[in-house]
Amino acid sequence: MINNPVKNFVEKLSIKNNPKVVVVGGGTGLSVLLRGLKKLTPNITAIVTVADDGGGSGILRQEMGMLPPGDIRNCMVALAEVEPLFSELINYRFTEGSLKGQSFGNLFLAAMNGISPNFETAVHNMSNVLKVRGRVLPVTVDNVNLEATLVNGEKVLGESRIPEVAREQNSKIKKTSLVPADVTPLPEALEAIAEADLIILGPGSLYTSIIPNLLVKGVPEAIYTSKAPTVYVCNIMTQPFETSDYTAYDHYKAIIDHSYNTIVDYCVVNSTSIDDVKRDKYSKEGSVPVKVDRDKFKDTQVQILEADLINPQDPLAHHDTEKLAKLLISICKSKR
Amino acid sequence: MINNPVKNFVEKLSIKNNPKVVVVGGGTGLSVLLRGLKKLTPNITAIVTVADDGGGSGILRQEMGMLPPGDIRNCMVALAEVEPLFSELINYRFTEGSLKGQSFGNLFLAAMNGISPNFETAVHNMSNVLKVRGRVLPVTVDNVNLEATLVNGEKVLGESRIPEVAREQNSKIKKTSLVPADVTPLPEALEAIAEADLIILGPGSLYTSIIPNLLVKGVPEAIYTSKAPTVYVCNIMTQPFETSDYTAYDHYKAIIDHSYNTIVDYCVVNSTSIDDVKRDKYSKEGSVPVKVDRDKFKDTQVQILEADLINPQDPLAHHDTEKLAKLLISICKSKR
Repeated sequence: MINNPVKNFVEKLSIKNNPKVVVVGGGTGLSVLLRGLKKLTPNITAIVTVADDGGGSGILRQEMGMLPPGDIRNCMVALAEVEPLFSELINYRFTEGSLKGQSFGNLFLAAMNGISPNFETAVHNMSNVLKVRGRVLPVTVDNVNLEATLVNGEKVLGESRIPEVAREQNSKIKKTSLVPADVTPLPEALEAIAEADLIILGPGSLYTSIIPNLLVKGVPEAIYTSKAPTVYVCNIMTQPFETSDYTAYDHYKAIIDHSYNTIVDYCVVNSTSIDDVKRDKYSKEGSVPVKVDRDKFKDTQVQILEADLINPQDPLAHHDTEKLAKLLISICKSKR
Repeated sequence: MINNPVKNFVEKLSIKNNPKVVVVGGGTGLSVLLRGLKKLTPNITAIVTVADDGGGSGILRQEMGMLPPGDIRNCMVALAEVEPLFSELINYRFTEGSLKGQSFGNLFLAAMNGISPNFETAVHNMSNVLKVRGRVLPVTVDNVNLEATLVNGEKVLGESRIPEVAREQNSKIKKTSLVPADVTPLPEALEAIAEADLIILGPGSLYTSIIPNLLVKGVPEAIYTSKAPTVYVCNIMTQPFETSDYTAYDHYKAIIDHSYNTIVDYCVVNSTSIDDVKRDKYSKEGSVPVKVDRDKFKDTQVQILEADLINPQDPLAHHDTEKLAKLLISICKSKR
């Protein structure tokens, strides 16, 4: 156990060679982490939510009856070792016609899905084409949607509609669940968790990227049972109408409440203050830096790891992929 | 000059090592030839029409203002040396939603076009990704359409509409032209023609795949000037309302009439009779085997090369890629 989180935390630990790291989440937050992580270990498994129903992914989901490709595509691109031209191609979004806004990478996965016996094989084959360092796994291959219950009692079905409806009703998310509730986790995902040296939750949207994975029966159980330490990477900024005014503890609490047991050993938070220029950009949208309420963690077994995790080059308050990855990889020690 | 076309024609000629072969056309006929040709020489340049405006290509052309990708994609796939899975992917057509019927390969070229400074670079980059053996060049990168004048005087603008309108009006194609008439040939295409050891026209639809290339000012001139022998590969069957009742000489004559000089040295025709089962399949659509009217060629300098060119495995009367390629590659001798 680490008793004294400090700035130079990373250097103080001996890092196991090529540790097996499992990253759980979705969205762009996860891909930021993966970009840094792949330089430190080849043994990465990204377990990714398939509850997305918005944007280009939502269109393909609706029109082709396939699982949403976007989050998985993002992770594959982050771990890809293919030439830059090909990466650029996969990230390209069409600018005209009926495909306007659609990602070519999504269509790539849709076509691969069309020639493959199932979705996980399609992801596997696309990973091969992109020379992915590590593995990207959908948390389930069942057709599943996210439903939120707001504090005002309203139920919202569909991940993409949740923040929107919460905003309209000026309410907050109370809890989320899957529809249908019983979905089967991908066996390879559970195996990866069982064999992991480190399990990372996030970074990413709390309710729409991280928790949907934990709602898949068997996943939090596997995390709890695994000997690997589990780290939750707390967001730097709150997300309007998803985690408005949430402190670090509120984030943590939501994860535990949706997992039915205390699966988190470490909570990684940013220690650098956000400058006024950045703050201003966020405050217009009702987003503020997440407060780290250490006191509330006192009754838990969770260790807070506080470090400068900001990317100074980024005009927004985003994680620095290298700083974050280095900090995380240093935690590869057995837990409990 | 070859004076005695015989069955064992191929074996009687010494084949130059890695001859530079230029193939001019479009459509699936060309890609059948390319598949066989690439086994015999790495020096292949396919010069491909961009006048197509039908199907998935037409939709992308209209929606994205790009040149039609279909014919070029077909040639790239035919020359590709990439893994079979990737070829299968590029050939995949979506089966559902608004992309139903669209080829993924077309979208691949559309996306590549989106990240490239121009269309020819996009084709070049996609060729690299597909490990194309040889080169695929659009005959022009100008936005051009095909217009046909029917025998009844009617003008039809748009390649895809030509056979359809001819059928409706029960008329035939008299001549075709480009709109606009003045388009610039791709310099690399002219260079390839100038440096060729062999120039092949077709196989493919006479008016909608082969002639559109010859209507690009400079192309027939370059073919005429080139020292390479030029071979026209005549279709095995007539095409309803495009070449209904056309004999081999009629095909040849149409090429010459649209080229303003006698650019053809050899005319390759099939010698095998088409069996009744195959004939029946075609006759329903008004298609019959092309008659070889040798007499009419007597006043020309054209040598008829007659050989068994049928693919016995094919349920239709299609060229056998290997037989055709071997015959053609044997002609690599200087002309005139």
